[in-house]
Amino acid sequence: MRCVRESGHLRTLHALVFTLHALAAAMLITPSDVGAQAVPRPYDLVSKQIIREAMCEPGAYQLLEGLTRIGPRLSGSQNAAAAVRWGYDAMVSLGFEDVHLEPVMVPVWERGDIERAHAVVGSGPVVPLAVCALGSSVATPAGGIEGEVVEVHTWSEVDALGATAKGRIVFFNRPMDAGHYNTFEAYGEAVDQRGGGPVAAAKVGACAVLIRSMTLAIDDVPHTGNTHYEDGVPRIPAAAISTLSADTLHSLLDRERDLKVRLELTCETKPDALSANVIGEIRGREKPEEVVIVGGHLDSWDKGQGAHDDGAGCAQAMESLRILKELDLAPRRTIRAVLFMNEENGLRGGREYAAVARGDRHVAAIESDAGGFAPRGFGVNAPRETLDLIARWSYLLAPMGADRIIEGHGGVDIWPLSLQGVPAIGLMPESQRYFDYHHSDKDVIAAVNPRELQLGAAAMAILAYVIAEEGLEAGASQ
Amino acid sequence: MRCVRESGHLRTLHALVFTLHALAAAMLITPSDVGAQAVPRPYDLVSKQIIREAMCEPGAYQLLEGLTRIGPRLSGSQNAAAAVRWGYDAMVSLGFEDVHLEPVMVPVWERGDIERAHAVVGSGPVVPLAVCALGSSVATPAGGIEGEVVEVHTWSEVDALGATAKGRIVFFNRPMDAGHYNTFEAYGEAVDQRGGGPVAAAKVGACAVLIRSMTLAIDDVPHTGNTHYEDGVPRIPAAAISTLSADTLHSLLDRERDLKVRLELTCETKPDALSANVIGEIRGREKPEEVVIVGGHLDSWDKGQGAHDDGAGCAQAMESLRILKELDLAPRRTIRAVLFMNEENGLRGGREYAAVARGDRHVAAIESDAGGFAPRGFGVNAPRETLDLIARWSYLLAPMGADRIIEGHGGVDIWPLSLQGVPAIGLMPESQRYFDYHHSDKDVIAAVNPRELQLGAAAMAILAYVIAEEGLEAGASQ
Repeated sequence: MRCVRESGHLRTLHALVFTLHALAAAMLITPSDVGAQAVPRPYDLVSKQIIREAMCEPGAYQLLEGLTRIGPRLSGSQNAAAAVRWGYDAMVSLGFEDVHLEPVMVPVWERGDIERAHAVVGSGPVVPLAVCALGSSVATPAGGIEGEVVEVHTWSEVDALGATAKGRIVFFNRPMDAGHYNTFEAYGEAVDQRGGGPVAAAKVGACAVLIRSMTLAIDDVPHTGNTHYEDGVPRIPAAAISTLSADTLHSLLDRERDLKVRLELTCETKPDALSANVIGEIRGREKPEEVVIVGGHLDSWDKGQGAHDDGAGCAQAMESLRILKELDLAPRRTIRAVLFMNEENGLRGGREYAAVARGDRHVAAIESDAGGFAPRGFGVNAPRETLDLIARWSYLLAPMGADRIIEGHGGVDIWPLSLQGVPAIGLMPESQRYFDYHHSDKDVIAAVNPRELQLGAAAMAILAYVIAEEGLEAGASQ
Repeated sequence: MRCVRESGHLRTLHALVFTLHALAAAMLITPSDVGAQAVPRPYDLVSKQIIREAMCEPGAYQLLEGLTRIGPRLSGSQNAAAAVRWGYDAMVSLGFEDVHLEPVMVPVWERGDIERAHAVVGSGPVVPLAVCALGSSVATPAGGIEGEVVEVHTWSEVDALGATAKGRIVFFNRPMDAGHYNTFEAYGEAVDQRGGGPVAAAKVGACAVLIRSMTLAIDDVPHTGNTHYEDGVPRIPAAAISTLSADTLHSLLDRERDLKVRLELTCETKPDALSANVIGEIRGREKPEEVVIVGGHLDSWDKGQGAHDDGAGCAQAMESLRILKELDLAPRRTIRAVLFMNEENGLRGGREYAAVARGDRHVAAIESDAGGFAPRGFGVNAPRETLDLIARWSYLLAPMGADRIIEGHGGVDIWPLSLQGVPAIGLMPESQRYFDYHHSDKDVIAAVNPRELQLGAAAMAILAYVIAEEGLEAGASQ
């Protein structure tokens, strides 16, 4: 990226020629500017410097390039181990303090070489279906499993199947609801199928499940994600099916009486392995024992490159510290970057961090785990008074349109901390494109815009810095 | 896109299985919800219906698919004529009223088959440079033109060249300033080089100009755009050079004494041709003679597909009417979709519309011409009292984060209307990615996200509808 530095002579001599397009510059005026506020408010200047630094030096994007070069980073994999080393080295290179690894045992699940399915219509055509194993799934028997298919959309439909489900494949085909503005809401309404499908189907005797991919895109890319089993309920194979293949299968079921699907998966769960959270910080200049966390999760699914989920969050967390250091903004309290391990299929890193850190005083935890898109604000999981204290600073985020501070989700990795009463704050980017990529081969760095990624880092840096300076105690700032 | 219809049984039975991810749904709570407002405000329900319709039916995206299939649509080209027919047919198909063409004469500039440049270092290597002719440029002499190169960044540097510029190629290499959050501001500061470069360079005797492409991306794609000549000043050839090639040329100039650039362009300006604005409307149910415009421009540069610039705006304008019709929202005043011709290199369509429509009563004109990205709000070019009247309705746009109503640019095509006192309102999308694509081969439909495009259409539909219902007169709503 190129910046015209403020001190240069270039800025003083521009725009002698009028063009209609140049009028667009007027767009930048914000409502507060219109009111002609002459007196800058606290941290106004600092936050503008942070935004400018983030826009001029694409530090997060460069970090993300390094991380995604490793490839996908499923917990316990060699790539995940490489990512831990990468994170450690990067934090050391950036001059963070107290850089260290926090050991954590993680589950190890491997996809195996084969994941395929096709529909067989009588003795007729064979229609390939795009599928991938869901995380934690067991394999099919060698050579695959074949069964008639029953399509369902609701849990009551599953229950109503009763004995008719025996030996069949249950096909969960309730789509994410495109009608929501916030795609996370659509996800939240549909993802119960992925998590709970295998247990519900196994309880009525099904031999396997297919789950419509959790995406709003209609294409032939299956989206993985974790699923669950229950003790005492048979563990049956579970696969995601692309939205296009789901539509194909739906049509086939509509018009063919004699239809079976054959599914073959070779995934397996192995013994837990040693991995680690990666931690580094800027020590607080006055209250080093009080900590504000910025974080993301270092593991990803074993599809694509885990660029948006959650390479972006790791890169932004580290970048937010780099920016503060670059601007010589030594915070009153410690700001700590944490790259959590194993968000996707175990949350072991988040739990371990919370357990180990129980003694520390955490003022707040900020996580980015909703994609590297232009930030719109933050969701806050904390009492109303705390939210109000945070929302005081929203004007600092307004110059980049990230000033929406609302009640909401903090982050999966910082959920265990929130159970200890730590305010959990989640970066909230524009959500329209996230589930196009999420948990699939499409989640690669080419899908990340450098400037949007940098804006998220700037938003985290601003909020972390002002909380580290001011704290979140009601009343006097300290 | 898939929607779970409100009335379906699907929505009532979801989410029986708890997952951590589902917590993300809580993100949707907005500040006004937190306050637990029980009583809906005016148009709350209608605007939510509009947003939902836009998210469920990708009408704008389908229109854009049709339009971009034609290819780029430079004024006076066969493609532009095809686009006029397409627009007319589409409006008829959508059931708009009074669909008609408004004739307008447009300039005709053709790029020609050749546009190439290379740097020659002494008798040594030849370094190819990625260039394209700027719109309105004259050709080089057949076989090209060769000259030494002088790099400049400011107008005073050009003036200071004096006689030393004679016979040389002036290379304008002041980058867009990445440090701005709003990329239009960076564009507005740099685009004076493209518009004014040829005249300024010709005045000191230069034989041609190269202008650094107006983009924040560093790649090898040149970005075109219009330039200008002045009577009495020699017309010299003008080309945009990609940012990577600009950096290469800068480096070569730094270290090579004996460097020349050869530039060859075969573009030419032909006689004006007949074209048209495309117009259709929903007649107002009470005050049909009062008009709210929604528009975009139908012409594009002759690179890529003109998808973001401004196929998106045309598609959104038409889609906003489709949505209102689909929801049976008959507006009090007329809402008129206008696809303007010749924004890029003449503004003839915008001027013609304003001239012809002088007798009508235009309540407001809304244009989308800043890309099909997620909307953030609207810029308003109107007196402060009018802006305040519009800003009353910002809460209707808040559910999709498009509630920023600020002083600013309305739109190039509606600028002539604004000179007649018509409030000019510009859709303001997130700007980070726009100049990656703008005026280049990269501006294709693959760069447009359907949901982001639809949100812009929803924002236009909401604002157009509420203005058509309520008017923009201070005091009583009517």
